[in-house]
Amino acid sequence: MCLALCAPGLAQAQGERLTAGESDPRLMGWMQGFPPAPDKIITQPDSVYFSFPKLRWSVCHLRQFLPTAGISRGLGAPVALAALPAAEAEETARAIDALQFTPIGGTAPMTWEASLFANYTDGILILHEGQQVYERYFGCLEADGKHAAMSMTKSVTGLLAQILIAEGQLDDSLLVRDIIPEIGDSAFADATVRQVMDMTTGIRFSEDYADPDADIWRYAAAASPLPKPEGYTGPDGYWDYLKLVQPEGKHGEAFHYKTANSDMLGWIISRVSGKSVTDLASERLWRRMGAEQDAYQTVDGKGVAFAGGGLSLGLRDLGRIGQLMLDEGVINGERLFPAEVTEHIRAGGDRTKFSGYPAIPEGSYTSQWWVFHNKNGAFAARGVHGQTIYVDPAARMVIVRFASFPEAKNALIDPTSLPAFQAVADYLMTR
Amino acid sequence: MCLALCAPGLAQAQGERLTAGESDPRLMGWMQGFPPAPDKIITQPDSVYFSFPKLRWSVCHLRQFLPTAGISRGLGAPVALAALPAAEAEETARAIDALQFTPIGGTAPMTWEASLFANYTDGILILHEGQQVYERYFGCLEADGKHAAMSMTKSVTGLLAQILIAEGQLDDSLLVRDIIPEIGDSAFADATVRQVMDMTTGIRFSEDYADPDADIWRYAAAASPLPKPEGYTGPDGYWDYLKLVQPEGKHGEAFHYKTANSDMLGWIISRVSGKSVTDLASERLWRRMGAEQDAYQTVDGKGVAFAGGGLSLGLRDLGRIGQLMLDEGVINGERLFPAEVTEHIRAGGDRTKFSGYPAIPEGSYTSQWWVFHNKNGAFAARGVHGQTIYVDPAARMVIVRFASFPEAKNALIDPTSLPAFQAVADYLMTR
Repeated sequence: MCLALCAPGLAQAQGERLTAGESDPRLMGWMQGFPPAPDKIITQPDSVYFSFPKLRWSVCHLRQFLPTAGISRGLGAPVALAALPAAEAEETARAIDALQFTPIGGTAPMTWEASLFANYTDGILILHEGQQVYERYFGCLEADGKHAAMSMTKSVTGLLAQILIAEGQLDDSLLVRDIIPEIGDSAFADATVRQVMDMTTGIRFSEDYADPDADIWRYAAAASPLPKPEGYTGPDGYWDYLKLVQPEGKHGEAFHYKTANSDMLGWIISRVSGKSVTDLASERLWRRMGAEQDAYQTVDGKGVAFAGGGLSLGLRDLGRIGQLMLDEGVINGERLFPAEVTEHIRAGGDRTKFSGYPAIPEGSYTSQWWVFHNKNGAFAARGVHGQTIYVDPAARMVIVRFASFPEAKNALIDPTSLPAFQAVADYLMTR
Repeated sequence: MCLALCAPGLAQAQGERLTAGESDPRLMGWMQGFPPAPDKIITQPDSVYFSFPKLRWSVCHLRQFLPTAGISRGLGAPVALAALPAAEAEETARAIDALQFTPIGGTAPMTWEASLFANYTDGILILHEGQQVYERYFGCLEADGKHAAMSMTKSVTGLLAQILIAEGQLDDSLLVRDIIPEIGDSAFADATVRQVMDMTTGIRFSEDYADPDADIWRYAAAASPLPKPEGYTGPDGYWDYLKLVQPEGKHGEAFHYKTANSDMLGWIISRVSGKSVTDLASERLWRRMGAEQDAYQTVDGKGVAFAGGGLSLGLRDLGRIGQLMLDEGVINGERLFPAEVTEHIRAGGDRTKFSGYPAIPEGSYTSQWWVFHNKNGAFAARGVHGQTIYVDPAARMVIVRFASFPEAKNALIDPTSLPAFQAVADYLMTR
């Protein structure tokens, strides 16, 4: 039986994965027509709409599947990103497209432009010295569209938390139960806010998608905004789930990347600020950074936003967040938060507790941001399927990328991404 | 047992309905706190979240319950509505608040300001000669918020259709089956586009909410974006439902207000334009009218927007649509559509086919707009629970109102609305 996957009839016939070009959602014809052909309709459940190649359409349309809360940019005029004069911009784009690098573990060089396709890029923007020097859109994304940020959402949550710390509203040495007494005997209760922020809590939260008993599935069931199935007795919503988290290992011993930490942090910053994470993001970032577009965040059945992965936003607004991080809280001449916020994040977490990320061998993780500890002092927000804000302080460069790489793990895409980013940094530093 | 309803403990104790002040969602405490108290959480299903007094919160937050498609305003700067100088604005607002009128069927006079509370107003904006002269927000709404338009959505759908007609893209004398052959033997098949637009089709579509077998429930089941219940064999989505509509009476004989017509029209304009109603609204209106905010529209499980009632938008953007109608397609010095679009609508439908609306005894309905045929030539978009765009060409006045009146029927709110609008018109004409 030949379903949508084999429609273009190219690589698929040989059992190979569709390329970026072949899986372009416009070429695939997803959701085109009124109505689309039955095999071109993308619908629930997420195992369908978020599987490749359909996910290449869905990453731009999550709100069509899920309830959301808005992140308002307010009612003012956007502030355009500074840009190069047209002729210089064109020349720079050509030069960047032609840049060569060697993928990690590879031997043959690859051009920057080829890497965009290797990485199933949907949108990429490069800022240098605060000026937009490169911008391209592919697949489902355009300048006025929005794209799923996936786990980059965590970094926005972490940034908001770090801002509250700098302002004295949040004390990261407190225990979770000091702030949220009803966390009860959850494994989170006696973790410090800092351990939650740095994901060094000792909590059981398996994200083994192949295991039907994995915690991630119970989390998903709790978080689903759909009515609970009959007979469902599990937790309802992110926060009810967090009260039931079991311990595994000791707090503070090692970095373990577990999404539940981010939602715990979302709850903490909502409690201390008296605002939802979406309202906080609007007040502290969107309304003040000259944002072009509102953003949105998926919510559970009680209206709580998914602080670990629910954000969708425009590429240029993602670039504004990156620029804010590079410029230590200043954008368009206005200070949005104290410089120490970025300084803390850029300095990184405890490297002795970090391991297991092949493309980030010397890395660390703090306040929900990845720090490379490389020669340029780069740090990043990262989300599955290739989402990133990559900030390179030495090169005064920000690269933001939305992508829809067929598989979730960034380990598969880092080899054709991180050296490419470094090649652009090298080019911009000597330009 | 004392649930949320009796919390303020006022009128309710006497078995009376909470007043506007008593049912203010901020006072009720809906969704306040992280998390809110269990009895303050508003959640699925719609029989809960859209029942009074909870609906007073939900009208501003429909996206938190339902999947939606966005209506983009684009990336440019908004164009502010012209406004009176501050001192004059304040004086005018005071004068309007003090205006008196006699409610239909009443004897005692009521002030304009009192009518705002009688009508459970959430936001109201008055434009005179294109200038904003009055603006107030209550309940869940603020200037940068969005509110459910309910059946005013129909009027936006109808406006878009009328624009396509004026441009020659749509012929309203065609039969539905000429445009959508797969409508099959639905009762819609041999209706003209004009009959659909004017709701003079002969279709069975009972909206008796008390009858569990009413068509509206089958429609709701088809339209629900939630996964269908096990064993569900009915239609999936608005358009599949429309294929199954049964006849009742003859096309063209009488006006019957039936929401299915609006979704049929949404399908028609999507088919002929090659765009969804949300993309059409963005292209023709939001991107060109200086809109302050994006809007959104709820969607069914296949991503089709609810053309009969799914729109949510900002109050001032609703005012821009009203001003566009008053100024026959021109706003901010730019013509968005031919004057004949408004001329057609303003002229009204066949009055001999219209009956049964006590507050609109001389009225008619055309292109999904209500026409009063009163001395001022007023016409309107109207939605349940008090939503309206009221355009008064003689007074060069537009009133837009969002409300959350406890009961759906506008017949209950017209007596304290329509004479109040006329009183403001009289005042503005002699000011």
